[in-house]
Amino acid sequence: MRERVHEPLGRAFIDTVLRPRLLADAETALPAMIATNQAHLVMLAERGLIAPGPAALVARALADLARRGIPPSDLDPGLEDLYANVERAVARLAGEDAAGRMHVARSRNDLWATVARISTRVALDRTMAALLDLRACLLALAAEHTDRVVPGYTHLQPAQPITAGFYFLGVAEALARDSERITDAYRRVNRCPLGACALAGTSFPIDRGLVARLLGFDGPVVSALDAVASRDYVLECLGHFSVLAVTLARLAADLYFWSSAEVRIADVSGAIAVVSSIMPQKKNAAALEHLRGRAGHVAGALAAALTTATGTHFMHSRETSVEVMMALARSEADLAVILALAAAVLAGVQVRPDAGERCRDDFSTLTDLADALVREANLPFRLAHEVCAALAREAIDARRGASSLDAAAVNAAASARAGRPVALSEADVRAALDPDRSVAGRGSAGGTAPAEVRRVLAEAERVLAADRAALAITRQAVDAAKHELEVRCSALADA
Amino acid sequence: MRERVHEPLGRAFIDTVLRPRLLADAETALPAMIATNQAHLVMLAERGLIAPGPAALVARALADLARRGIPPSDLDPGLEDLYANVERAVARLAGEDAAGRMHVARSRNDLWATVARISTRVALDRTMAALLDLRACLLALAAEHTDRVVPGYTHLQPAQPITAGFYFLGVAEALARDSERITDAYRRVNRCPLGACALAGTSFPIDRGLVARLLGFDGPVVSALDAVASRDYVLECLGHFSVLAVTLARLAADLYFWSSAEVRIADVSGAIAVVSSIMPQKKNAAALEHLRGRAGHVAGALAAALTTATGTHFMHSRETSVEVMMALARSEADLAVILALAAAVLAGVQVRPDAGERCRDDFSTLTDLADALVREANLPFRLAHEVCAALAREAIDARRGASSLDAAAVNAAASARAGRPVALSEADVRAALDPDRSVAGRGSAGGTAPAEVRRVLAEAERVLAADRAALAITRQAVDAAKHELEVRCSALADA
Amino acid sequence: MRERVHEPLGRAFIDTVLRPRLLADAETALPAMIATNQAHLVMLAERGLIAPGPAALVARALADLARRGIPPSDLDPGLEDLYANVERAVARLAGEDAAGRMHVARSRNDLWATVARISTRVALDRTMAALLDLRACLLALAAEHTDRVVPGYTHLQPAQPITAGFYFLGVAEALARDSERITDAYRRVNRCPLGACALAGTSFPIDRGLVARLLGFDGPVVSALDAVASRDYVLECLGHFSVLAVTLARLAADLYFWSSAEVRIADVSGAIAVVSSIMPQKKNAAALEHLRGRAGHVAGALAAALTTATGTHFMHSRETSVEVMMALARSEADLAVILALAAAVLAGVQVRPDAGERCRDDFSTLTDLADALVREANLPFRLAHEVCAALAREAIDARRGASSLDAAAVNAAASARAGRPVALSEADVRAALDPDRSVAGRGSAGGTAPAEVRRVLAEAERVLAADRAALAITRQAVDAAKHELEVRCSALADA
Amino acid sequence: MRERVHEPLGRAFIDTVLRPRLLADAETALPAMIATNQAHLVMLAERGLIAPGPAALVARALADLARRGIPPSDLDPGLEDLYANVERAVARLAGEDAAGRMHVARSRNDLWATVARISTRVALDRTMAALLDLRACLLALAAEHTDRVVPGYTHLQPAQPITAGFYFLGVAEALARDSERITDAYRRVNRCPLGACALAGTSFPIDRGLVARLLGFDGPVVSALDAVASRDYVLECLGHFSVLAVTLARLAADLYFWSSAEVRIADVSGAIAVVSSIMPQKKNAAALEHLRGRAGHVAGALAAALTTATGTHFMHSRETSVEVMMALARSEADLAVILALAAAVLAGVQVRPDAGERCRDDFSTLTDLADALVREANLPFRLAHEVCAALAREAIDARRGASSLDAAAVNAAASARAGRPVALSEADVRAALDPDRSVAGRGSAGGTAPAEVRRVLAEAERVLAADRAALAITRQAVDAAKHELEVRCSALADA
Repeated sequence: MRERVHEPLGRAFIDTVLRPRLLADAETALPAMIATNQAHLVMLAERGLIAPGPAALVARALADLARRGIPPSDLDPGLEDLYANVERAVARLAGEDAAGRMHVARSRNDLWATVARISTRVALDRTMAALLDLRACLLALAAEHTDRVVPGYTHLQPAQPITAGFYFLGVAEALARDSERITDAYRRVNRCPLGACALAGTSFPIDRGLVARLLGFDGPVVSALDAVASRDYVLECLGHFSVLAVTLARLAADLYFWSSAEVRIADVSGAIAVVSSIMPQKKNAAALEHLRGRAGHVAGALAAALTTATGTHFMHSRETSVEVMMALARSEADLAVILALAAAVLAGVQVRPDAGERCRDDFSTLTDLADALVREANLPFRLAHEVCAALAREAIDARRGASSLDAAAVNAAASARAGRPVALSEADVRAALDPDRSVAGRGSAGGTAPAEVRRVLAEAERVLAADRAALAITRQAVDAAKHELEVRCSALADA
Repeated sequence: MRERVHEPLGRAFIDTVLRPRLLADAETALPAMIATNQAHLVMLAERGLIAPGPAALVARALADLARRGIPPSDLDPGLEDLYANVERAVARLAGEDAAGRMHVARSRNDLWATVARISTRVALDRTMAALLDLRACLLALAAEHTDRVVPGYTHLQPAQPITAGFYFLGVAEALARDSERITDAYRRVNRCPLGACALAGTSFPIDRGLVARLLGFDGPVVSALDAVASRDYVLECLGHFSVLAVTLARLAADLYFWSSAEVRIADVSGAIAVVSSIMPQKKNAAALEHLRGRAGHVAGALAAALTTATGTHFMHSRETSVEVMMALARSEADLAVILALAAAVLAGVQVRPDAGERCRDDFSTLTDLADALVREANLPFRLAHEVCAALAREAIDARRGASSLDAAAVNAAASARAGRPVALSEADVRAALDPDRSVAGRGSAGGTAPAEVRRVLAEAERVLAADRAALAITRQAVDAAKHELEVRCSALADA
Repeated sequence: MRERVHEPLGRAFIDTVLRPRLLADAETALPAMIATNQAHLVMLAERGLIAPGPAALVARALADLARRGIPPSDLDPGLEDLYANVERAVARLAGEDAAGRMHVARSRNDLWATVARISTRVALDRTMAALLDLRACLLALAAEHTDRVVPGYTHLQPAQPITAGFYFLGVAEALARDSERITDAYRRVNRCPLGACALAGTSFPIDRGLVARLLGFDGPVVSALDAVASRDYVLECLGHFSVLAVTLARLAADLYFWSSAEVRIADVSGAIAVVSSIMPQKKNAAALEHLRGRAGHVAGALAAALTTATGTHFMHSRETSVEVMMALARSEADLAVILALAAAVLAGVQVRPDAGERCRDDFSTLTDLADALVREANLPFRLAHEVCAALAREAIDARRGASSLDAAAVNAAASARAGRPVALSEADVRAALDPDRSVAGRGSAGGTAPAEVRRVLAEAERVLAADRAALAITRQAVDAAKHELEVRCSALADA
Repeated sequence: MRERVHEPLGRAFIDTVLRPRLLADAETALPAMIATNQAHLVMLAERGLIAPGPAALVARALADLARRGIPPSDLDPGLEDLYANVERAVARLAGEDAAGRMHVARSRNDLWATVARISTRVALDRTMAALLDLRACLLALAAEHTDRVVPGYTHLQPAQPITAGFYFLGVAEALARDSERITDAYRRVNRCPLGACALAGTSFPIDRGLVARLLGFDGPVVSALDAVASRDYVLECLGHFSVLAVTLARLAADLYFWSSAEVRIADVSGAIAVVSSIMPQKKNAAALEHLRGRAGHVAGALAAALTTATGTHFMHSRETSVEVMMALARSEADLAVILALAAAVLAGVQVRPDAGERCRDDFSTLTDLADALVREANLPFRLAHEVCAALAREAIDARRGASSLDAAAVNAAASARAGRPVALSEADVRAALDPDRSVAGRGSAGGTAPAEVRRVLAEAERVLAADRAALAITRQAVDAAKHELEVRCSALADA
C-alpha cells in the first residue's frame, strides 16, 4: 500500500505508536473490524460491485479470521494498522486479486469510524449494564433500610434525621439520570459511517442503508464529511462517564465519612479494606479511596480528549480517530473499576442499628421544634427559627445537648421574642425533638418518611425494570443484525 | 437569621465571596428568586399554610420587588445571600410578621436548587437559540455553495475535491447533534426541587406539583435528597457546551487555514480581522483565534466543575450550589462569545471562486483514476491504488502535477503491475482527473455531488425547522406558566 | 492603523471580545503599557532613533497619561486594543508626527509580550506575599499548639496521636515548596521580550539590555521568536497556582472534618460560617466549601490554558497573547480568594483543649504498644503487630476501647503467638497506651514530639524570614528600575 | 498482617485494583522498593535496632531478591501490595523472625512515599535525557539552516522572512526553560521521606540522614506529616510535563502546516508518514498528529491528578499514594512518546531550498519598506506604516504581488500622506523588498540575521553542554549512593 512514499516506517514511530496501537486493536477491535468488512462485502456483492467468485473467497477468508483471529506473531506494524494487516491476512487466504477487490467504495477513514462507533456502542452497553446492577443494589439497600434512622447532613453538619433507605434511594434517583444520558448518547452513537469513504462519498452505487442494518446501526450518518470527521459522540460519552463518576465519588465520600471512627454510621467490609503495616488497629476503607481517585482519571480522560480535539480541523485525522478513541478506552476501563468497587463496597456495607441515636442530642430535630412553634403557636417561621437558634447557641455554649431543652425554656424564649405568651406543652416539645417522629412526619412528596420512601422506591423499581427491558431490546437488535450478517456471509461463501 | 452564631460575618469572607456573589446574583438571579417565592406563596395559600392576610401582604411585596428590583445600595452581604436580602426587603414592605411566614416548608437549599435549575434552563434556551441561528447560517452557506469546488482535506493534505456547500452542510449536520444534546439535557434540567426543603422534605402538607407547574417545570425532582444534593445536570450541560465548542473550534481551524495566504480558499472579512501595528500587509483573522481560545475556557469551566464536584459529599454544600454554578455562568458566557464570533465570521466569509482550480494538479482526483482502473479495466482496487500511488510518487519527485499524467503513462504502469494489458482511453484518464466530474460523480448517500448535497440540505432544513418549532413550544410552556403565576399572585395580592 | 482592510471592525467582534478586553486592560495593564512605552522611548532617544524634540513631546504625553489615565469614555474598541488607544492618546497630546515616531523598532507583539511578563510578575509577587503571610499564620498556630494533642489520621481513621502544632507545621512545610516554585518561576518570567518586534528582531540598532533594565527585568528573552511566541511561563505559573490551591484545599478538608459535629477537634469562627434559613442549629463552615470549590476553578483555568495552547502554532497569536493570559487573570483572582479565605479561617480556628482525649480509647497508641513489645520483649515487629491487631479486633468487636487492654491480656496474646513467655509490666502497657507519652516519645527527625516540633519550627521560621527578605529584594529591584525610568523620562521630557 | 479484619480481600477489589497495581509495581518499583529496604536495614543495624544475626539474614534475602526478582506466580494480591509480598519473600528466605524485624521504625506510608520519590526522580531523569537530545537535534538543525530563508508567521499569515535556523533555535530556546523546570523540580523531589513512619515519626533512635544518603537523596523531607501526605511534587512534575508537551505540540503544528501541500516549506520523511488506503497520492504526516494528540493526554493526566488530589485530606491515603502516582506513570509514558516522535520527525525533516522565494511577492518585507521610509525619508513610523498598508491593500485587491511595487508608486503614496515630497530611489525600494537583505539586516539581539543566529546558537550550545554536565553529575550522585548501599549491604550480609 505504501508505494507513495520512499521510506519504510521508522523504528521510533513503530515502537511508540504503531505497534502498541496494533496490538491493542487486535485485542479489542478485531471482531468489529471483521464484521465491518463482512457487511461491506455483502453489500458490494448485492450491488454487483464484486463478482461472486472473489466475493466467496473473501467471505471465506473473513469467516476464517473471525474464527481464528490473527496471532500476534503475524501482525506487522510496518503495514501501518490493523486494517492493513487484515487485508494482508485475507490476501494470504483468498489471494491478492480477491482481497484487492474488497476495498472498493470505501476507505480506512469510514472503516475506522465505523469501528469507533461499534466500540463506543459496546462501551455504553457495558457501562449501562453495570449501572443497572448498581442501581438495583442501591434500591435493595433502600428497601432494607427504609426505617433505619441516620443523621442527614448538609455542609457536613447534622441537619435533620433521615433514614438510610432514603439516602440510598436518593443516590439511586440521581443514577437513573445517568442511565438516561447513556440511552440518549447511544441513539446518537448508533449510526453507521461506512460509505462515507475518505470524506466525500463515492461514485460507486453503494447501499449505505444495507451496511448500516447489517451492523446493527439505526441507519447511516448522513453527511460523509461528518461521518469521518466527527467524534463529538465520543466526547459526549466521556462527559457522561465523568458525570457518573462524580456521583459515585460523592457516594464514596459519604461512606468514607460514615465509616470513619468518629462518625460510625456504617461499617465497611474487611473485603474492601486494607490494614496498616505498622498501626495494628487500622482498618482502612481503601476501595473507597481508589474509587474517588479513579473518578479523577475519568475526568482526566475527558480533559485529554477535549484538549486534543479542540486543536483539530474538521476532517479525518489520527488525533481524533486514534488519540481521542484512546481516551475513551481509558475512561471506560477506569469507570468499570469505579462501578465494580461501588458494587463491592455496597455489597458489604453495614449500617449501624444505633446510628440515629445521636440525633436525640445533636439538635438535628430543631427544625421540627421551629415547625411546632409555627403549627401550635402560630409564630411566623422566621421568628420560630430565631427562638430555636438562640436556644441552640446557648445549649451548645453550655455543652448541653438537645435533650436538655424543655417546654419551659422553649416557651420562655418564644414568648420573649414573640411579645406574647407561647405555651407549647412538654409533650409537644418532646414529640418535636424525637428523631423517629421527625422522620415519620416528613411525608411530603419525596420526603424521608418511610411510607413515602416506599412509594418512591416502588416507582424507582418500575423505572429500573423498564431500563433493563430497554437494554435487552437494544441488545436483541444488535444480535439480530449479527445473525443476519452471518447468514448472508455464509450464503456468499457458499455461493 | 444569624442568632445561632456569635460573630458577624468577617470582612475577608464578605469581600472575597459573599459580596461578589450577592451582586452577581442580584443581577442575574433575582427574577427567578422572586418567581420561586411567588410560586411557593401561592401554594402555601392554597394549602392553608399561610393566612390570606399575610399572604396578600407578601404577594404585594414580591410584586413590588419584581417591578422595581433591589437597588445595589440596599443589598447587605452581611445577611449572607440574596435570599436573605429578599426576605428582608419583603419584611420592610410587608412587615416582619408576614415576611416571617413565607419561609415555612422550604429551605434555602431547595430554593437555590430551584433557581439553579431555572438559570440552567435559561442557559440552555439561549444557547439553543444561538445554535439554531448558526445552523441556519451554515445551511444558507451550503445552499449558496453547492457547486463551488474546493479541495477537501484529510490529515491537512488535499484528499479529494469537494464543494464548499458540502463542507458547510457537514458541519451543520454535526451541530444538529448539539441541538439534540441540549434538548435531552433540558428534559433532565426542567424538574423542580422546591419542597425538598433542607434535604428531607417537610411535615407540612405541601403540593410540590403545583409549585413545579407554576414555575414552568415538567414536574418535581422526586427525591428530596437528590433535589438539593445533585448538580449532575449542570455538569452535563458543561459537557455539552464543551462538545459544541470543540466543533466550532474545528470549524474555526478550517477557516483559519482556508484564509491563510498560502491556502486562500476563502477570505474573511476585515470586520473580524485585526491588522499589525508594524507589518503593513497583515490582515489577521483574529476572531477565529479568540473563538478557538475561548473553546479552551469552556473546557476549563467543565474541568473546574468536575474537580470541585468530585471532592464533595452527596449533600447540599456551597461547593455544588455556588462554585459549580459559577462554572456554568462562565461557560455560558464564553460559549456565547464563541457562537457570536462564529456567526460573525460566517456572515462575512467569501469562498474564492477559483479555490478548486488547484485540484487539477494536486492529485486529489487520483482516487477517481484508481476507480476508473477498477471500473474500466477490472483491476482489483488495491492494485489500481498501487499503480496510481507509484505514478504520483514519480510525478511529485519530478515536480510534475497531476495534469501531466496521460493514458500512455497510466496504461504502462497498470499493465506492468497487472501482468496484462490495460488500456484506458485518454478520455477516461482526463475524465477521471477532472475535479468537477469527480465532485459530480460522488452521488452516494451523503456524498459531495451537488444533487446529493441539495437532497441532504433539504432534509437538514426540515430538521432545523422542527428544532425551531420545538424551541418555540418550550418557550410557550415557560411563558404560560409565568402568566398563570402572575394571575394567581395578583389574585392573592388583591384578596 | 487599519488602512490594510476595507471594513471597520464588526459589532459582534467588538462587543464580545474587543471592548471587554480593552476595558479590562485599561484597568489592569495601563501602567505596564505606559512604562513599556517609556522604556522604549528612552532607549530610542539614547540610540538616536528618535530626535530630542519628538522624544520630549512623547515623554511628556506618556507622563501625562501615567498621571491621569485614560477615561473609559475616551477608549475606542474600534481601534483594536489598548496600545492603539494609547498611541492615539499620545497623538492627541504630542501630535501625530511625534506619536508616530515612538513605534519604530518594535511591534505590538513584543509590546504585549512585555506587558504579559510584567502582569505575570505582579501575579507572582502578590501570590507570594499572601503565601508568606499564610505560612507565618500557620507557624504561629504551630507555635501555639506545640503541646496540644489531637488525633492524627491516615485513611480518615485515627492513626497515631499528634499535636495540632505538628499538623500546622507540616502544612507550612508543604507550602514552603510553593514559595520555592514561585521563586523559580519568577526567575523565568522576569526576562524582557521588547525588541523582538513582530518575531524577527529589527534592523534598527536598538539596545535590548537597556530596555530590560529600565523595566526591572533581569535581561532580555534572547530569541526574538521565543520572545513573542512563548507563554510557557504562564502555563507554568498556572500549574504552580493549581498545586498551591490543592494543598490549601487539603488543609480545608481537614478543618472541615475537624469542625464537623461528630469530630470536633476544632471550632471555626462564626465569621466564616453561614447559618441555615430553616435549621436553627446549623453553623456551616461555608468559607471552607468556597475555598475547596475555588481550588477547582484554579485547576480549571490551567485546563483552559493548556487546551487553548496545545492547539496553537509556535508564533504570536491571540490564543496565546490574550486567551491564555485571561486564564492567568482568572486563576490569580480565584487563588487570591483561596488565600484570603485560608487566612480568615486560620485566624479564627480554635483547637479544642480536649481533642486528644479520645486517643486514650481509640487505639491510636497501639503502634506504641507494638513498639513496647519489640523494645521490652524483643519480639519481631511483625509479630508484635499481629498480637496488637488481634487484641484490637477482639476489643472492637466487644465494643471495648483501648483503655480496656491490660498487661495480662497483652502478655497472654503475645506469649501465645511468640511461643515463649512475654511479660510486659502493667506500667509498660499503661505508658505505651498513653497519648501524651506517645507524642512526647516521637522525637525522631521531623516527628511530632514537642521538642522536635519546636526545633523544626525554628528552622521553618528562619526559612520564612529568608523568603521574606528575598521578596523584599525582588521588590526593591523593580522599584529601583521604576525610579531610574522616571528619572530618565523626566530628563527626556525636560530636554 | 491482616489480623485486624475478619474478611479476606474481596474478588472485585483484587481484580480491579490490587492485582493490576501489584503487577505494575513488581515491574517498575521493585528495585526502588528493595533499595529502600536495604537502606533502612543498614541504618537499623548501625543504630543497633536490629541484631547482627537477623540483619545478615535479611541482607542476604534482599540481595537475593534484587538479583532474581519475584516471579509473577509468587505474587499474591491477597497480601495487599508489593511491600507485603516483599516481606513474605524475605520471610521465606530469612525466616519469619528475622523478616519480622525489618519493619521496625517505619511504615508502608513512608516506604511507598520513598519509592514514589525515587520513581519521580527516574521520570525526571529520563525526560531530561530525552529533552537534552531533542534540544541538541534542534540546535543542529539551526546550525544547518542559519541561512535558509523561510516565511515567518504570525496569526498564520506571512509576517516577515526569517531563516529556518532562527526558527529551530527559537524552539530550542523555549525548551531550555523546560530543562530548567525539570532541574528545579528535581531539587524538590530528591528528598527522602523514610523515617516519617505512619505520619508522626518514631520513638526509635533512627538516623534519617543516613537513609537519605544511601538512597541518593539530598536529605530527608523534614516534617514527617509532610513526608507521607504530600505529593505536590508529583503535581508539579505533571505540570512541567504538560508545559513541555504544549511546546512540542506547537512545533508539531508548524511542521504539519509547513509540510501541507499548499505551504510546502518542508517535507517530512515517509518514515513518519502514513499513506491512504484509498487515495493514492496521500502522504500524511501522521506522527505529528499523534504527537499533538498525545499532548492532550499529558494534559489529561495532570487534570486527573488535580481532580483527585483536590478532594483529599492532608494525610496519607491511596488517592494520593496510588491514584496520583498512576497519573504520573501515564504522563511520563505519553510524554516519552511525544519526545520520541519529535526526535523522529526532526531527524527526517527537509526544509525546501526554495521555501523563501515566495517572500518576494507575499508582502512580508513590507515592514522593511516602512522602515526604509523612516530611515531614508524621516517619516514617522506610523505614517510609513499607513502608506505601505494602503499600497498592500491596493496591490492585493488588484491581485498583484509585492514585486509590483516600485519607487514611483511608493513615493507617490508617501508624498501624498506626508504632505511633502518623498523620494526613495528604486534601489532603496528593491533593497527593502528583498527577503535575503531583510533577513540579513535583522541583527538586533536575538534577531533572525544569520550572524546573530550564530551568536545565540553558540551560547545555546554552551547552555546545553552545561545542562548535560549537570545531568551527569546528578546521575553520578545517585550511582555513588547505590554503590555505597551495595557495599554496606554486602558487609552486613557477610557479618
